[in-house]
Amino acid sequence: MTILFTLSYDGRNYCGWQRQHNGVAVQEVLEKALSQLYGYELHVLGASRTDAGVHAQGQRAALRLEQNPIPLDRLPLAINAYLPKDVVVTFAEEVEDGFHPIRNAVEKTYEYIVYNAPYIDPRYRDYCYFVSTPLDIDKMRQATGFFIGRHDFKAFCATGSERKSTIRTVYSLTVELDGDLIRIEITGDGFLYNMVRIIAGTLVEVGQGRIPVDSIPKIIQSGKRDLAGRTAPAGGLTLLEVAY
Amino acid sequence: MTILFTLSYDGRNYCGWQRQHNGVAVQEVLEKALSQLYGYELHVLGASRTDAGVHAQGQRAALRLEQNPIPLDRLPLAINAYLPKDVVVTFAEEVEDGFHPIRNAVEKTYEYIVYNAPYIDPRYRDYCYFVSTPLDIDKMRQATGFFIGRHDFKAFCATGSERKSTIRTVYSLTVELDGDLIRIEITGDGFLYNMVRIIAGTLVEVGQGRIPVDSIPKIIQSGKRDLAGRTAPAGGLTLLEVAY
Repeated sequence: MTILFTLSYDGRNYCGWQRQHNGVAVQEVLEKALSQLYGYELHVLGASRTDAGVHAQGQRAALRLEQNPIPLDRLPLAINAYLPKDVVVTFAEEVEDGFHPIRNAVEKTYEYIVYNAPYIDPRYRDYCYFVSTPLDIDKMRQATGFFIGRHDFKAFCATGSERKSTIRTVYSLTVELDGDLIRIEITGDGFLYNMVRIIAGTLVEVGQGRIPVDSIPKIIQSGKRDLAGRTAPAGGLTLLEVAY
Repeated sequence: MTILFTLSYDGRNYCGWQRQHNGVAVQEVLEKALSQLYGYELHVLGASRTDAGVHAQGQRAALRLEQNPIPLDRLPLAINAYLPKDVVVTFAEEVEDGFHPIRNAVEKTYEYIVYNAPYIDPRYRDYCYFVSTPLDIDKMRQATGFFIGRHDFKAFCATGSERKSTIRTVYSLTVELDGDLIRIEITGDGFLYNMVRIIAGTLVEVGQGRIPVDSIPKIIQSGKRDLAGRTAPAGGLTLLEVAY
């Protein structure tokens, strides 16, 4: 049988979702907890390879196992007992065999948080991109429209990453003000490496007046990474949801 | 001259505001930063002795010094360059000589955050009191009225603390829902040791149905600590403002 988990984590202490040599991965602590719970070695397949410092509220991970003696509704609490406090399983459901958490995903939603005030509340320091100069949120909103739809997002992809196609579809992109926070939410069929962070960094530069709103279509068309804005810091990014 | 600073901090890595033997105090890192900036040893007097793990957005600290060669509007950034990232000075103003940050305070405002959902977003784990069972927010709001006004709050004071008088005036107490967060905000002329955390813990038990709403006046009158609710965890508490 295959069980699909939904999980939240605070990425500040992790080298990212996927196992790496330089640090502890979220995947690793989840696999360790599952192995301890079931009593034998287990592995999971995640829906999104979140980077070091990136957070999640709705990461998904699939587990294949012969049999599961623990009722599904009690499984999250049972696993959480073996997990560190910065990783929390929130849901467990059975899915059909052959289910693949990456290939079966139809859309993903990320949130990027910008903290825009003269000084930062230090509790947010690992959970946002702190920008002390005032941002023009209307300009940022005007820019969002150009990203929506099916485009070649090569200009918004970290250089050096190997993807066959750089065409992706963005279904929605919103910019909401929440006190000192600016919440950027983006939904698409998938995202290139660093794409959400480069779009967030570009929107910030639009808000600063460094990048004109009407230059966005030209930047997309150019396919040139150096014309887009900077890659916004990892801490501001949260994987909100993976939809199947 | 006397300079009054406003500062924010993330209390998770500190033993509290005041210097102690068991850990690093916020006062200590601020004094170290000021001493490095001015080039000689300096000490400050804080407005509130926040406990280990308690946060602040509007702590105040007074500094007496012979002369200040740094313009007041540039002082916060100059000090922040010497501070760790979890302590941020946000404002500096000159006050009259003889100003005392504790005695001159006319009111203080604290926020207490309860996270009420089946599972916690782990980013909040050091910034809230996580309660997984549903809370009746209407009952919590009904209970607030009994705390407002001038009362002997002995029942809401940690046992063993030495205060001449346990009479305090609460000016306002509100309970607001903000997604999965319940924000409790309280303003008063001053608070006894652990008073805000015991009131928050009591409101949570009211929301759970463990303490009846109409028993609050009797608990206050009794002066008995064991009749009030539990002391809610330090991480949920933030000193929002000290008014002069």
